[in-house]
Amino acid sequence: MDLTEKTLESTVAYEGVIVTVQRDRAELPNGKTAVREVVRHPGGVAVLPLCSDGTVLLVRQYRYPFGEVLTEIPAGKLDKGEEPLHAAVRELREETGLTAGKLTSLGSVYASPGFCDEELHLYLAQDLHQGEAQPDEDEFLAPVRLPFQELAEQVLAGEVKDAKTVAAVLKAKLLLNW
Amino acid sequence: MDLTEKTLESTVAYEGVIVTVQRDRAELPNGKTAVREVVRHPGGVAVLPLCSDGTVLLVRQYRYPFGEVLTEIPAGKLDKGEEPLHAAVRELREETGLTAGKLTSLGSVYASPGFCDEELHLYLAQDLHQGEAQPDEDEFLAPVRLPFQELAEQVLAGEVKDAKTVAAVLKAKLLLNW
Repeated sequence: MDLTEKTLESTVAYEGVIVTVQRDRAELPNGKTAVREVVRHPGGVAVLPLCSDGTVLLVRQYRYPFGEVLTEIPAGKLDKGEEPLHAAVRELREETGLTAGKLTSLGSVYASPGFCDEELHLYLAQDLHQGEAQPDEDEFLAPVRLPFQELAEQVLAGEVKDAKTVAAVLKAKLLLNW
Repeated sequence: MDLTEKTLESTVAYEGVIVTVQRDRAELPNGKTAVREVVRHPGGVAVLPLCSDGTVLLVRQYRYPFGEVLTEIPAGKLDKGEEPLHAAVRELREETGLTAGKLTSLGSVYASPGFCDEELHLYLAQDLHQGEAQPDEDEFLAPVRLPFQELAEQVLAGEVKDAKTVAAVLKAKLLLNW
């Protein structure tokens, strides 16, 4: 069965700071039409900084949509036209002050493919050197250091909920066979 | 440091079929104000149906935001006021025709907490019985069956990109020690 849906009409319904919402009319595989709402997002990167002592440097950050402070790996949006690897180096330095001698791709994930085109490129950062963090003006981060195994346990227990952090930590755990 | 941001003003900027976009002015920890854009989403469930023969029943589905057919575990949005467990039973039945004798929570993940309040409740479904699938009118799904270990390998190799599928598969692999 061909599952493809064809765009018949596309309208920008909302143009925002981070996201744009597109409201399309699409032709479905059975020939009928339906509204398809798409949140357009620039995509981003997330970096798991694994230090030589077996700890991970995380950031705690107020996440406005949930009204909660979450524990996440350092991450950020791609600048326009920016390569994911470049963004990974940049965000890691800005948020934590770390530079990595070794960055390994952990693949990418689609955060919410039903309605949003955000792709998050995941990296494992090793061989780390500490410099000074330079967070964005409107970004308030509290660093927190956790042993990798404790972080993995928190992820498995459902205490760490951020999807990119869950994906990166569990991928690293299985790929490194830790 | 108190990382909390206070809402000063809230406006609905877009009201759509699935999402609503809210554009707020918030007071930051340093007393300055910033725009906070929030995509409101009803949240959803995703269910990993692990059959007694060690295979998983997945669905292939055209994901309009990416223009790609993705392989995902069965999933869907919460109906208004619906309990996640109820939605898990409903979506599993609708999308695959399966009913589960045993549903185990794998916790929940926040798909994209920087700008969206979507929470996805993950479940492992076992002791499965086959009935007839009843997908929504505008939903076109192709079922696909994969051995769990092959699915886990595809996730680790970055071939399966859907974040909820990545999270559920790797959590199940580590929690079941498979």
